[in-house]
Amino acid sequence: MAEQITLTMPDNSTRQVEKETTVLEVAKGISTSLAKKSVGARFNNQLVGLDEPLIDDGTIEIVTKDSADGLAILRNTTAFVLADALKRLYPELHFGASADNEDGFYYDTDKADGQVAVTDFDKLTATMNKLIKANIAITKKPVAKADLAAQYKDDPYKSQLLKDAEGDAVEVYSLADGSFSDFGEGAMLPKTGGIKYFQLLSVAGAYWEGKSSNPMLQRIYGTAFYKKADLEDELKRRQEAKERDHRTIGRDLDLFFVDPKVGNGLPYWMPNGATIRRTIERYIIDKEVANGYQHVYTPVLANLDLYKQSGHWAHYREDMFPPMDMGDGEQLELRPMNCPSHIQIYNHHIRSYRDLPFRVAELGMMHRYEKSGALSGLQRVREMTLNDGHTFVALDQIQDEFKKILKLMMEVYEDFNITDYRFRLSYRDPANTKKYFPDDEMWNKSQSMLKAAMDDLHLDYYEAEGEAAFYGPKLDVQTKTALGNEETLSTIQFDFMMPEKFDLTYVGEDGKEHRPVMIHRGIVSTMERFTAYLIEIYKGAFPTWLAPVQAVLIPVKNDLHLEYVNYIKDEMQKRGLRVRVDDRNEKMGYKIREAQTKKVPYTLVVGDKEVNEVAVSVRKYGEEHTEEESTNMFIDAIVAETKNYSRDGKLKKSQESLDKKLDIQE
Amino acid sequence: MAEQITLTMPDNSTRQVEKETTVLEVAKGISTSLAKKSVGARFNNQLVGLDEPLIDDGTIEIVTKDSADGLAILRNTTAFVLADALKRLYPELHFGASADNEDGFYYDTDKADGQVAVTDFDKLTATMNKLIKANIAITKKPVAKADLAAQYKDDPYKSQLLKDAEGDAVEVYSLADGSFSDFGEGAMLPKTGGIKYFQLLSVAGAYWEGKSSNPMLQRIYGTAFYKKADLEDELKRRQEAKERDHRTIGRDLDLFFVDPKVGNGLPYWMPNGATIRRTIERYIIDKEVANGYQHVYTPVLANLDLYKQSGHWAHYREDMFPPMDMGDGEQLELRPMNCPSHIQIYNHHIRSYRDLPFRVAELGMMHRYEKSGALSGLQRVREMTLNDGHTFVALDQIQDEFKKILKLMMEVYEDFNITDYRFRLSYRDPANTKKYFPDDEMWNKSQSMLKAAMDDLHLDYYEAEGEAAFYGPKLDVQTKTALGNEETLSTIQFDFMMPEKFDLTYVGEDGKEHRPVMIHRGIVSTMERFTAYLIEIYKGAFPTWLAPVQAVLIPVKNDLHLEYVNYIKDEMQKRGLRVRVDDRNEKMGYKIREAQTKKVPYTLVVGDKEVNEVAVSVRKYGEEHTEEESTNMFIDAIVAETKNYSRDGKLKKSQESLDKKLDIQE
Repeated sequence: MAEQITLTMPDNSTRQVEKETTVLEVAKGISTSLAKKSVGARFNNQLVGLDEPLIDDGTIEIVTKDSADGLAILRNTTAFVLADALKRLYPELHFGASADNEDGFYYDTDKADGQVAVTDFDKLTATMNKLIKANIAITKKPVAKADLAAQYKDDPYKSQLLKDAEGDAVEVYSLADGSFSDFGEGAMLPKTGGIKYFQLLSVAGAYWEGKSSNPMLQRIYGTAFYKKADLEDELKRRQEAKERDHRTIGRDLDLFFVDPKVGNGLPYWMPNGATIRRTIERYIIDKEVANGYQHVYTPVLANLDLYKQSGHWAHYREDMFPPMDMGDGEQLELRPMNCPSHIQIYNHHIRSYRDLPFRVAELGMMHRYEKSGALSGLQRVREMTLNDGHTFVALDQIQDEFKKILKLMMEVYEDFNITDYRFRLSYRDPANTKKYFPDDEMWNKSQSMLKAAMDDLHLDYYEAEGEAAFYGPKLDVQTKTALGNEETLSTIQFDFMMPEKFDLTYVGEDGKEHRPVMIHRGIVSTMERFTAYLIEIYKGAFPTWLAPVQAVLIPVKNDLHLEYVNYIKDEMQKRGLRVRVDDRNEKMGYKIREAQTKKVPYTLVVGDKEVNEVAVSVRKYGEEHTEEESTNMFIDAIVAETKNYSRDGKLKKSQESLDKKLDIQE
Repeated sequence: MAEQITLTMPDNSTRQVEKETTVLEVAKGISTSLAKKSVGARFNNQLVGLDEPLIDDGTIEIVTKDSADGLAILRNTTAFVLADALKRLYPELHFGASADNEDGFYYDTDKADGQVAVTDFDKLTATMNKLIKANIAITKKPVAKADLAAQYKDDPYKSQLLKDAEGDAVEVYSLADGSFSDFGEGAMLPKTGGIKYFQLLSVAGAYWEGKSSNPMLQRIYGTAFYKKADLEDELKRRQEAKERDHRTIGRDLDLFFVDPKVGNGLPYWMPNGATIRRTIERYIIDKEVANGYQHVYTPVLANLDLYKQSGHWAHYREDMFPPMDMGDGEQLELRPMNCPSHIQIYNHHIRSYRDLPFRVAELGMMHRYEKSGALSGLQRVREMTLNDGHTFVALDQIQDEFKKILKLMMEVYEDFNITDYRFRLSYRDPANTKKYFPDDEMWNKSQSMLKAAMDDLHLDYYEAEGEAAFYGPKLDVQTKTALGNEETLSTIQFDFMMPEKFDLTYVGEDGKEHRPVMIHRGIVSTMERFTAYLIEIYKGAFPTWLAPVQAVLIPVKNDLHLEYVNYIKDEMQKRGLRVRVDDRNEKMGYKIREAQTKKVPYTLVVGDKEVNEVAVSVRKYGEEHTEEESTNMFIDAIVAETKNYSRDGKLKKSQESLDKKLDIQE
């Protein structure tokens, strides 16, 4: 009788099988239907293929098509077939790293035969499909690294990968017809025909080993699924993310750019983007002033001592820029946060209980050292301008002030039509309390105060440990970017520490000195992040009040209608509207299409009829039909729409329910 | 016969006199009236007193009371008498340096007997007057330094001054009654009675030898004149300068502060100052946008390479902050100017002749390393936000664009009621051309182009060599601060260099690439400097549209009138006005006086009569009388005044003359 080995199943039951039984045979031994769905196994926590003969005792879990591991095996195989196809089409190509991930796979190559373009994908796909149709078996065998070295001697990247591989041997996968082989980790399908639905997606630059000092390779991205519907869903999701991606829209609508040559993570706001930002800035300042905030301007630089006193230098240093030695004993630091600056404002005068809540706010520029790999468009930057505010309150005013801030926040969300967000209560990490201001009582007290306030308001929230600021817990409003990253939109943070550190006081009704509590709050986060967020939720189609160009005026014929068009433009500009006249010598259809591409809210066409009737033909963004309106009535309507922050001409919802929910009495 | 010496008079005539003839005798020899007015002489270019016996041949000029030298002798004598009086009142005092200057004199002392306060000035003045009334003769004789050393051995500062004095002997001045002596340079009057009109002014801290590492002494300032009217004029001038000084007003009206502990030259704008700044910012942005400028936001940081390419690092380095090493090979620099940033905006797209003039503008924050001694309030700072703009033009558009900018500038001056300024054409220093971009032809061409443009417009100007930017000549608009320093308010600068350095191009009508010219322009300079300037010209009484608080509402009785007052407040706020209600439990007279002290444009009092008549009692800033007005009419009027940027309710002058002068056709 052949030698037996013992397999331990996920439910801890065991199974005796002959040594060298394959994974497929094990699956068949359990059930035919399982065998049908299976594409490999996790054996001793390593992914292996269906043909893998099992030699030793071990744990085993059959991998089916509907699991993440199943997709990994499929995508690893597809990447292998992609490489084979590349080699056939571009024989001089050298290969770098490849990987499968939760969305698909990629393979890096050099550009020996010239850049592979998206336009080459048809050819490449056809070649891959031939290989798949031929249903060639893929075999695997271990080869000593020493034996393989000669084969890759002219291939600098594979040579390096071979050298870096662990152990003395690597697994070499080969097509049974001998046409192609490759080495690497991960499991594969038994035959090329197992690949059902795949799609090549894009090609981008990628530095060899991820280091910018190394040569730039090209990375070809693709994805693969077992079911057609799954592939279609994924392609649709990608298309939507791409359509929402603020970097793509930012470029298409000429809103901003980042040029690493002049500074990583330092965006330049082009006129269109700057108009949006300026509109947001004026909106939020006016809103805050109306809500009792006193806006200030404070310097972006301060003596490093200030951040030593605040604790930032001790707790936040890795995110800070290097200090500048001014040569006269002064060390200046670009501020990473605005709170110490606002504390200077508070402390500049003796404060009385009559001054509380003392609300100070600023569009405060800050600098944070993000790693270059983390930088992304306007979302992750190194220089940012925060809609920052701090309110200094007496202990018994915390709850009421918290509600007022929450009300302000939700009013702002309504004006911007923000509906998709979650409240997060961010606590300190109980496993790593050293990262935080050391005062257990403060943490416990303020974390439970925060929770109690939210419960009081009957608002849904979730709790997250390790997400607090180093000085205290907070309420964060969380959203997701087009790329799926979670971002904080707004925040309200309790702080009992800074008032201690800076010895903040106010004179109470009793004539004695008391310690205020500080509340840090941001409503629309940084101008950078918020604009990125708005670009994504609006997909670039900004509501009229925010749109860089609110209306494009198109004369049917310049010589006949331009004069009237310019008159309308002047009238609109006098009312504070942003209008552009398109009097280029282009076809009218072309001009209208371009206005739609640029997502301008209103396209106004003026011909003989309009001139005679003192009217304009109005076409709204995203609509196909045109409506004639009296010029004056149209201008009045668009002014009202702008003043009301409304989208698509609809009026805002009533604030009543909000007030009720927040239980605020004015 | 006594020995003769030869004196050469200012007109080069000579005069033979006996050796040891005194200055007074020489003056008498010329004319009795001259002798009467004379207080000393400049002998061989040294100031000497009337009693000075002349020993050698030399040039001589009799010094009369009405000359600067005459005042210097008076003030030197007054400082001597001040020291005598100080010694009598505070025997333990040690003396430091003293000096006379164009405005008066000062004497430094330590604080051995405690700080001398302004409140001690009466006592001190009385003692000085006693010495003056006694009309004691002041004698002078040379004493060997070695002989004098013992006398000053307990006096660290005088010992040092003695040691530092040139030669082996110093001139010792003594009162003839033997009560006081002092040594030093400069001449004195023959008797204390020659001091007629003097005034002690202030006392301030001054480091010994001007070094901050040395002990802080106190410096007592005073001034003296021969005529009562001159003293009165000077005191009036000082009072006015003090009333205008933006630092004093800035503190009194709580507009801003600078705290060297958190950063030299880094102002904090308090809510009142921030409101003024925000109003200026919105005004100038809206004005520029209406004039075809595209506003942008660009980062305050850039890779140092950018400033190497621009030439700033080579020509402007001493004014720049130290670069920050980011650890990944990137050196980031706080920008000293915005032009390279705007060049990035221009260069981000291919530009065509149709895009020109391409006008880009920004409220651009910059950092410049000013020496700490040069820093002053908002006028001289290290972090500043410039109303910056750059227009890129074709060569043949320069003249027209220059005129357009000049027109914009003068419209802005009219809105701010700026009338006191001079045009300066700033050229490079022909004696030190190395400091500038090396291209003689460019300099000659552009300097004469600038001059020709100004001549064309028939505008008055003066020319200043050595005041150009390193890249080109400019037109500067010069004003004076309260302290008498000249500052640049606006500037228009031609630049042929940057377009070369950054290879800027546009596609011409001929389809070929051409080089644009860059014009740097600032209308209202930096927010810091401009606000300081406005504070000084308005003496803190900002026109309604700029005032931080535009109206204070005072209810006669809170319980009876506060409700109506709050209604008016709401109505005014809805119209965008900045209003404050003063419902403190203070007397009405006190509240009205305080509103005047805070220079609020309108004080509105509301009592029974006003409630009944739906009216307000209006008192304008600076006026004594009150006028009742219908509430609605008052609100309409103040809104109109604000919209119109008018001062004191007056409408702006017509723009017609300006357009005519600038010869601009729209």
